[in-house]
Amino acid sequence: MAIQEINDTICAISTPPGCGGIAVVRISGPEAIKIANSLWRGKSLETVPSHTAHFGTMLDSDESELDEGVATVFRAPRSFTGEDTVEISVHGSKWIQRQAVNALIDKGARSAGPGEFTRRAFASGRMDLVQVEAVADLIASSSRAAARVALSQMRGGVSSRLDKLREQLIELAALLELELDFSEEDVEFASRDKLIETTDNILAELRHLLSTFRSGAAIKEGIPVAIAGATNAGKSSLLNALLGEDRAIVSDIHGTTRDTIEDTIEIGDYLFRFIDTAGIRHTDDSIERLGIERSIRALKHARIILHVVDATAPQETNLDAAGEDAIVIRILNKCDAVSSVSGDGIKISALNGDGLDEVRKSLVQAAEAESKDLGEDAVLITNVRHAEALKAAATSAQALSDGLRTTLPADLLAQDLRETLHHLSTITGEITTNDILINIFENFCIGK
Amino acid sequence: MAIQEINDTICAISTPPGCGGIAVVRISGPEAIKIANSLWRGKSLETVPSHTAHFGTMLDSDESELDEGVATVFRAPRSFTGEDTVEISVHGSKWIQRQAVNALIDKGARSAGPGEFTRRAFASGRMDLVQVEAVADLIASSSRAAARVALSQMRGGVSSRLDKLREQLIELAALLELELDFSEEDVEFASRDKLIETTDNILAELRHLLSTFRSGAAIKEGIPVAIAGATNAGKSSLLNALLGEDRAIVSDIHGTTRDTIEDTIEIGDYLFRFIDTAGIRHTDDSIERLGIERSIRALKHARIILHVVDATAPQETNLDAAGEDAIVIRILNKCDAVSSVSGDGIKISALNGDGLDEVRKSLVQAAEAESKDLGEDAVLITNVRHAEALKAAATSAQALSDGLRTTLPADLLAQDLRETLHHLSTITGEITTNDILINIFENFCIGK
Repeated sequence: MAIQEINDTICAISTPPGCGGIAVVRISGPEAIKIANSLWRGKSLETVPSHTAHFGTMLDSDESELDEGVATVFRAPRSFTGEDTVEISVHGSKWIQRQAVNALIDKGARSAGPGEFTRRAFASGRMDLVQVEAVADLIASSSRAAARVALSQMRGGVSSRLDKLREQLIELAALLELELDFSEEDVEFASRDKLIETTDNILAELRHLLSTFRSGAAIKEGIPVAIAGATNAGKSSLLNALLGEDRAIVSDIHGTTRDTIEDTIEIGDYLFRFIDTAGIRHTDDSIERLGIERSIRALKHARIILHVVDATAPQETNLDAAGEDAIVIRILNKCDAVSSVSGDGIKISALNGDGLDEVRKSLVQAAEAESKDLGEDAVLITNVRHAEALKAAATSAQALSDGLRTTLPADLLAQDLRETLHHLSTITGEITTNDILINIFENFCIGK
Repeated sequence: MAIQEINDTICAISTPPGCGGIAVVRISGPEAIKIANSLWRGKSLETVPSHTAHFGTMLDSDESELDEGVATVFRAPRSFTGEDTVEISVHGSKWIQRQAVNALIDKGARSAGPGEFTRRAFASGRMDLVQVEAVADLIASSSRAAARVALSQMRGGVSSRLDKLREQLIELAALLELELDFSEEDVEFASRDKLIETTDNILAELRHLLSTFRSGAAIKEGIPVAIAGATNAGKSSLLNALLGEDRAIVSDIHGTTRDTIEDTIEIGDYLFRFIDTAGIRHTDDSIERLGIERSIRALKHARIILHVVDATAPQETNLDAAGEDAIVIRILNKCDAVSSVSGDGIKISALNGDGLDEVRKSLVQAAEAESKDLGEDAVLITNVRHAEALKAAATSAQALSDGLRTTLPADLLAQDLRETLHHLSTITGEITTNDILINIFENFCIGK
């Protein structure tokens, strides 16, 4: 599908697929109000004010009555898409939903592709690409923290930071161009020191934004938590207890878990992505050994490690594979089976549920520490595409910084600067390609 | 669950469950606008006019920002429920949907039970029970004809006919009461003939309504079509070809189909419920014999019979079991395998699809004949509960009619009349019991 900026009128069901009390048909485009009105018996939608809702009868394309409903009119540019838009609530029968869209198509509307309403908001300049992608993230959000980050991005939190950077780069470019124009006269208009300082500030900001990606991705996809410990320490039992279901197979046999088992749980405001790992030990079982390799990888990527120790037979585990800044929570399991427990750690029994609340509390505290950047107005990068573009921009900015210091000719410096600007501009979509757009919108649902 | 007419404020997601572009949270009750406004940042919803839509930010119960959305205010009595109602469109994330409802509950709303918004429309007198049940039918409708009948009932088509009958019965009652009062004086105020005539008119109307139930139910649930014919005539192949999938097992072996296989297809404006039957023949196979018994039952209940004859080896089938008024469509199958076909019938090949369009056309024509009662303003009974009450009312009315002719004492006549009235009143809900209400509303979805 090639993305074209067509100006026709589109329609789709915007509510989740399936049967329900009501469903909303959305129509957007220059003919939206006219087309909707041609299928409407009640007050003329063409004459009603913007942002008003009207009870009436929706007609089928043969003008027979299809359903009673409520039509709400939003006139351009005061709508989500920036175009004239009508939203009609009908009864949520699958048949009525399908028929309503068919009738609108009969009257000249086109069935909207995935994300096409949002794409129009982008085309009309109401949203940049970062905001557009945040809409998709918001719809997919499954924890308060994830929703909050997406909402902040949708409202332009990241975009305004990027815009500021772009402004600085454009100023820098103007100064460099000046130098370029007069270079044959050996006049240096801009002070090199000033140029270097500005470039380094930009570079620092790029690197700071990039550094938020790990937290940002963790908040969006779930904070990776590895459950580590010796075999038979009760790691799978702990996972099951936290999930409240029998997700992992549990037995008394050492080395029961071989695969790494992943599952997400929302605790407090956060989504955690638990990775139950094989107990790390020396083994001749080749399958178990593969599992242990995976455990080591999981440890490496985890932001939080639940280190489970069997209180009845304490045994430490080598956590060397873990990242330097990973937060380790030590847990003493099977405390119901010993009379007195010594050693540090949260005392729990995965079996009877004792201490699980404290584990949950510690997880939330760790997540809060982990995402301390996430203040009220914090800016977090959550999108791989953005992170990659920031990385590319930082590389170009670094080259610019180096070049300024080695007094590279201004035309080569200008090239680095243009590249930095280019990469930044792809993030918000000032510069974009069909491929990027197609990629972004094909992940949207129809109707948004 | 006991149904009580509580006057608190309820809330629920009214759109289908799941993830989508947008979801609608509906809040209804005396505090609806106040509660919604306490979670709203934007224009005060308490001061905006009815039927206006407002862009703003929905807050979480801790007053943090939950999502951007559009709130539409409907003031009593100009709303679906008849109460103050607010509908908020939020992004269709499952998490946001859940959180929005939780926040509203925190602020004093109650989570609505199935059909509770519609129950309030009933309680506030905006709808009677027939209309309420039609809402559920409309949401479940899966063909144009079914949706049309439900829409007509929702708008009071059946109700107004029943109301007219009730009025006539009440008039009749007044006359009878008069006679009762003066019975000791041997004065007959109302002419018996007039009373008998009115009663018989009522009885005729009750019977007419009752007679529409077979068509009504067929349109709502799907018109029963039996596919009958000798073994190996290609009945299952025809079913598969019409369905466009391999629903029934097909083989060259006589007697392959033993179970009766049912599936529905929407053709034209109608839903058809196809019943593929075992070929009727003498057999010693006890399982096949059971299947043949079922075939005979299916024939009996079918409104339309597709009588499939193998054109390569024509053989008639005994259709005696079919209902008198069933419409038989004769089909000559396997016409691709013979050079010339003789005999009446639609010539088809289930194998290569020839003639299937003609079969579909004949089915739609039969359905139209079948539902000729379904004119623009036709009144069809589609609900078993209504049919049963009409039957009971007709029985009482018959007793009244008989009683008037045998000059039964007026007090006994009055009893029959009261019973007729009682049964009629249960249909629209003037008289109702908790059991009936619970039964009706437990079949609704949440949010409607």
